[in-house]
Amino acid sequence: MDSYNIKKYLNDYSQKIQPLLRTYLINKIKEAKKIGDIPVKFLESFSQMVVRGKNVRGALVVLGYQLAGGKDMASIYDASTFIEILHSGALIHDDVMDKDDIRRGLPTIHKQFENYGKGNGKSFAICAGDIAFYLAWDKLLNSNFSNDKLIKAGKIFVKYALNVVYGQALDLINNVGNNFNQQAILNVFRFKTAEYTGVLPLLIGAILGGIEDEKKLGILMEFGLDLGWAFQIRDDILGLYGNEEKIGKPVGSDLREGKKTLFIYYILKNGNDMQKKFVLSVLGNKNISGNEISKVQKLFKEIGAYNYVMQLGWDYVKKGKETIPLITANKKLQILLASLIKYIMERTR
Amino acid sequence: MDSYNIKKYLNDYSQKIQPLLRTYLINKIKEAKKIGDIPVKFLESFSQMVVRGKNVRGALVVLGYQLAGGKDMASIYDASTFIEILHSGALIHDDVMDKDDIRRGLPTIHKQFENYGKGNGKSFAICAGDIAFYLAWDKLLNSNFSNDKLIKAGKIFVKYALNVVYGQALDLINNVGNNFNQQAILNVFRFKTAEYTGVLPLLIGAILGGIEDEKKLGILMEFGLDLGWAFQIRDDILGLYGNEEKIGKPVGSDLREGKKTLFIYYILKNGNDMQKKFVLSVLGNKNISGNEISKVQKLFKEIGAYNYVMQLGWDYVKKGKETIPLITANKKLQILLASLIKYIMERTR
Repeated sequence: MDSYNIKKYLNDYSQKIQPLLRTYLINKIKEAKKIGDIPVKFLESFSQMVVRGKNVRGALVVLGYQLAGGKDMASIYDASTFIEILHSGALIHDDVMDKDDIRRGLPTIHKQFENYGKGNGKSFAICAGDIAFYLAWDKLLNSNFSNDKLIKAGKIFVKYALNVVYGQALDLINNVGNNFNQQAILNVFRFKTAEYTGVLPLLIGAILGGIEDEKKLGILMEFGLDLGWAFQIRDDILGLYGNEEKIGKPVGSDLREGKKTLFIYYILKNGNDMQKKFVLSVLGNKNISGNEISKVQKLFKEIGAYNYVMQLGWDYVKKGKETIPLITANKKLQILLASLIKYIMERTR
Repeated sequence: MDSYNIKKYLNDYSQKIQPLLRTYLINKIKEAKKIGDIPVKFLESFSQMVVRGKNVRGALVVLGYQLAGGKDMASIYDASTFIEILHSGALIHDDVMDKDDIRRGLPTIHKQFENYGKGNGKSFAICAGDIAFYLAWDKLLNSNFSNDKLIKAGKIFVKYALNVVYGQALDLINNVGNNFNQQAILNVFRFKTAEYTGVLPLLIGAILGGIEDEKKLGILMEFGLDLGWAFQIRDDILGLYGNEEKIGKPVGSDLREGKKTLFIYYILKNGNDMQKKFVLSVLGNKNISGNEISKVQKLFKEIGAYNYVMQLGWDYVKKGKETIPLITANKKLQILLASLIKYIMERTR
């Protein structure tokens, strides 16, 4: 990686892993052919989906590895794809739960398979997600690192991936604790996203790169958490104010699904009765109109909810940046980390 | 394990692992408490379910370990529980796909959670299954064996668990190949059940016990396959002729779900037009009556389908028994293996 510009870094990463993912999945398709047509069809759909990711998590594995001083770039690129495979599997299950039709600009897996067999697209999507989880393990366990490192990495994988599902379950029930407040929401974000998106990949990269010192891993974890929180906050902003083509799904999904985001928290705390009544009337409305979504967008800007959420995200960026000098003395890597965490809050997809 | 009577062996195994599973899950519940109520509720429901299994797969891990000459029984009992956790997770997802209400004598997870949150029990069950999969990895990777052995075991885990999901997908689409024949059905059984139930646990036990020789593992694999085929065949028989309390789910589910079992294959090949018409009329009927199920039971016995399926199962038992002398020279273990594979076809639950 000769560039320390984050956009180029992410772009280079995507370029490197796309052929690796394709080759890997082509081999898996060959194996699945012995079993039957439908596993092959799953893997073909999955191949299309997995290469369309943002690849932030995979790039963080590589970055963690470089921060640890790792030099075997070919092996870490290959190993890092495990988390892109895992993430696509998690999205397949999420889309079933959230009844979403579009993901990464394509029909979701349960939509693609809704006319197969007994017409039970959701059952196929449950299988497809499970398949992706096993492929993620397959990728990691068969990668070119020592068994000792792989076991350590596997334990990190389990720990944080488990928390994601716990967080997902909380999200389903809109259970952000008995008190619906900022701290409770950020707590769900921690388990559902921040650890998984920021901490998991950085730590696994660092472990594969040879860091064993718990204190060093702890500092990296702190940075990863801040990055992950900013990531989820930016996700919520893009979900409401983003460009549909870029985010690959409809704007306003969170409203449609009745998610109690930071925006909702802010308006319930600071809005007047009419504003609260309006927002609650559209929250969870499966048939919410484009007009209503626009009205919500405007209201959130007028009342200060938008600025409040943006500020929270930028606070995490600031906090994360302060940790950087503790992570590495390498100036180029410091610049890369700073530009990465800033990018997380500026990204448009 | 001082007894070489298989029923006592399985019973002793269940007695040993129940407190291990409980302790493990109590610790996981403590961790989940930091995250929220709903993960705790999942784990509590899961704890009730997982201890009610037949534990055949877990016992096979221990048996594989003993066949390899392993002596650290405390560690292998503990490690072996990974597959009981995994299996319960797979059943949770299966039950969502098959829309089953009862499992192991309890309401299925999606039924237990159907009134939670937005009343989306299936979404919770998808999460609960995913949680179980991660717990299975957590259990295996943190067990008391060398990292080298654990990585080998993990690769076996991935390989066969992946095939189960492929087989499950084939089963969903009733896709037993383009030709609906005995060989095609047995092929689905291989991936869906035989490898996973027979081969996976025996091989993992043997690897943790120290066997590295591919030829030895190959012989064990052959025995495991025969055992696994017999297992699935017996499962289909119990699903139609078993005692509901013992099998823990309603008799006739396969008919209700329209599964193209060996029974169906036989009658479509050997029945007269009226018999075929009757069976096809009830196959896949969600509201099939008790009377109709009795009629099918009788018909399958009269026409020879029952004997045909039983014979197929016993053929696998015979074939498996012939492999035993190649697996071990230890007479006591030989007797145990022979009584085990025979038990598979005689079991009533």
